[in-house]
Amino acid sequence: MATVKLWTDEEVSANPRVKAIFDDIRATRKTDFVNNFWRALANQPELLQRTWASIKEVMIEPGALDPLTKELIYIAVSTTNSCSYCIHSHTAAARSKGLSDQQHAEFLAVIGMAAETNALANALQIPVDPEFVVD
Amino acid sequence: MATVKLWTDEEVSANPRVKAIFDDIRATRKTDFVNNFWRALANQPELLQRTWASIKEVMIEPGALDPLTKELIYIAVSTTNSCSYCIHSHTAAARSKGLSDQQHAEFLAVIGMAAETNALANALQIPVDPEFVVD
Amino acid sequence: MATVKLWTDEEVSANPRVKAIFDDIRATRKTDFVNNFWRALANQPELLQRTWASIKEVMIEPGALDPLTKELIYIAVSTTNSCSYCIHSHTAAARSKGLSDQQHAEFLAVIGMAAETNALANALQIPVDPEFVVD
Amino acid sequence: MATVKLWTDEEVSANPRVKAIFDDIRATRKTDFVNNFWRALANQPELLQRTWASIKEVMIEPGALDPLTKELIYIAVSTTNSCSYCIHSHTAAARSKGLSDQQHAEFLAVIGMAAETNALANALQIPVDPEFVVD
Amino acid sequence: MATVKLWTDEEVSANPRVKAIFDDIRATRKTDFVNNFWRALANQPELLQRTWASIKEVMIEPGALDPLTKELIYIAVSTTNSCSYCIHSHTAAARSKGLSDQQHAEFLAVIGMAAETNALANALQIPVDPEFVVD
Amino acid sequence: MATVKLWTDEEVSANPRVKAIFDDIRATRKTDFVNNFWRALANQPELLQRTWASIKEVMIEPGALDPLTKELIYIAVSTTNSCSYCIHSHTAAARSKGLSDQQHAEFLAVIGMAAETNALANALQIPVDPEFVVD
Repeated sequence: MATVKLWTDEEVSANPRVKAIFDDIRATRKTDFVNNFWRALANQPELLQRTWASIKEVMIEPGALDPLTKELIYIAVSTTNSCSYCIHSHTAAARSKGLSDQQHAEFLAVIGMAAETNALANALQIPVDPEFVVD
Repeated sequence: MATVKLWTDEEVSANPRVKAIFDDIRATRKTDFVNNFWRALANQPELLQRTWASIKEVMIEPGALDPLTKELIYIAVSTTNSCSYCIHSHTAAARSKGLSDQQHAEFLAVIGMAAETNALANALQIPVDPEFVVD
Repeated sequence: MATVKLWTDEEVSANPRVKAIFDDIRATRKTDFVNNFWRALANQPELLQRTWASIKEVMIEPGALDPLTKELIYIAVSTTNSCSYCIHSHTAAARSKGLSDQQHAEFLAVIGMAAETNALANALQIPVDPEFVVD
Repeated sequence: MATVKLWTDEEVSANPRVKAIFDDIRATRKTDFVNNFWRALANQPELLQRTWASIKEVMIEPGALDPLTKELIYIAVSTTNSCSYCIHSHTAAARSKGLSDQQHAEFLAVIGMAAETNALANALQIPVDPEFVVD
Repeated sequence: MATVKLWTDEEVSANPRVKAIFDDIRATRKTDFVNNFWRALANQPELLQRTWASIKEVMIEPGALDPLTKELIYIAVSTTNSCSYCIHSHTAAARSKGLSDQQHAEFLAVIGMAAETNALANALQIPVDPEFVVD
Repeated sequence: MATVKLWTDEEVSANPRVKAIFDDIRATRKTDFVNNFWRALANQPELLQRTWASIKEVMIEPGALDPLTKELIYIAVSTTNSCSYCIHSHTAAARSKGLSDQQHAEFLAVIGMAAETNALANALQIPVDPEFVVD
């Protein structure tokens, strides 16, 4: 159902710029599997390169937030944006990073409560308490 | 700018049902400060009661996700829903639970990347890889 | 804070096309008050004309849904879209059409539940039951 | 395409806590059919219990808004959130509660107008008229 | 998966009001192909008529923005709203109006950057610079 | 109302990394004015650097889409995401790049129509025509 062609491994191999990025995806993630997101972006090599560089820096390199927390934040945004592809791929990623059933249940409870109270606060147009503002 | 009246402490004190909930909010959070969200919901005592009971269970009682992680997930949803009140109140809550500047910076990077790749995946209507589906 | 000029009554009076639409707004609504939405659209007379014609047909002319129900549906969409202006103006309109406090409380409960279960259903990517599909 | 397992009746029967909730769903709705939403939530018994209790209180128990109006408000939120599952299930629910073709047509017209004017009001950043604010 | 029936050409031919609109769609677009959007709206002849009249005026009649630019703006909104149908149909329309691969790549980069910076600006609740406000 | 501190020119000057980026923003845009978005991001120098680099590449460097078209696409996304800051700043940017009143009026008409038909297509869950799918 894509609006663009998904590149096969053969097509990737025939394009040195795209092949170098796919090689780095495989080496960084230590798996031969490259998911459709990258096969779709292969049509736009510059966007592919910039997006992969950012994802690698933001989601994979070690930092102050652990990898599982980052995945949960990612799924929270993707769920609110109704991005079916992103919800599927990052829920799988969260599982591979150790998401337990209990954690998933609590995650779902939090995004549900957030969505509900967002609706209430927006409908009531509640003014921000001065205590919450940074001068 | 609210679409409903915000209840003062005097008005709260005059309504036993609302007062009992405000007392529990103050006792649970160990502070006398009650923010505008609850002062707006006071107009709907049933909704106030159910919402506070859920927030207490989901956001405050100990579980498999730590309190700061829950706040970040909450802000991620609220940002995507453009809920100004919720972003302000839960960013303040995250700070009070120890959010460091470095963690905030990484959080912002993650929600930015998620929003960007959501737009790309949606615009390209990328089909979900079979590897990501739970049978 | 508008991104365009808001037309004063003097400016409206100087433009026959815009004036005719403002006259119809006032006559149809039986009030001299014309809210900022129309004063902003006055910059684009064609859009003003088409939007007012549609609003009049959809929201004001009698039909199978009563006027208050239409306002609640309108606010539900506006809240989910975080349109502050629309939430304010249509909550006021709903009140002028008889919205009671109890109805407002139930409305808030429904939009809250919908937002919460939308988040859950999206996060779980639940497949549609065949019973819900129209052949 | 779910990100979690959907529970079969056999699996439900083997879990007393989940079974009790499914029994109540069937008894309350007076039908043996239990849709996939609840079969997905069965993985998180606490969330299942809290969500069903809220849905029952908000959507099923009699109140100041009639059941069909509540369904229309629900679909309005679900459409704006692009929740495919929720749109399907609640459009079916609205039909079972008597939604006529003419009412559906008017409902569609209202959500269309709301979405359009939300876009206009947001793009123009129209300031809220003082007349619409509750002090 | 529709929530309404999609009208076949036979059903269209049997309804003079709907047939007249379908005839105009075919004549205006110079093709016999009528896509499912109009076959679904055929259930609501008034909405069909008003929507087609607006689409024709806004998207087809010549103006100050060229047709391809209008399609890109349309897809940008549809992507952000996660409207799968609209993304597919208007990406096809943009291609038929000359969208090049390089333009598509740049379009994707722009909507990605916009979504990312929207998330950042919302999460940071940045106040609008006075320089950007129209008095 | 920001959730972070906005950096003054004095604070920027005291931080060489941030100062270098602000210098580049001023040189690239040929103006001394630096808007609040960058003053907020200054708290996160890495994010500031990566975001400015991307904005410069995507929005400023010449390509296959002209600068005004990119701004309109940007505003379309920002409006749909209800990002008040982004709508203000990019409407001002579009004006500085030559947006005429007639173009603005047509832009508003297009995003209004897109939002309206998104709501209709989502509510009707219209299946994608095979003609629109890329194999």
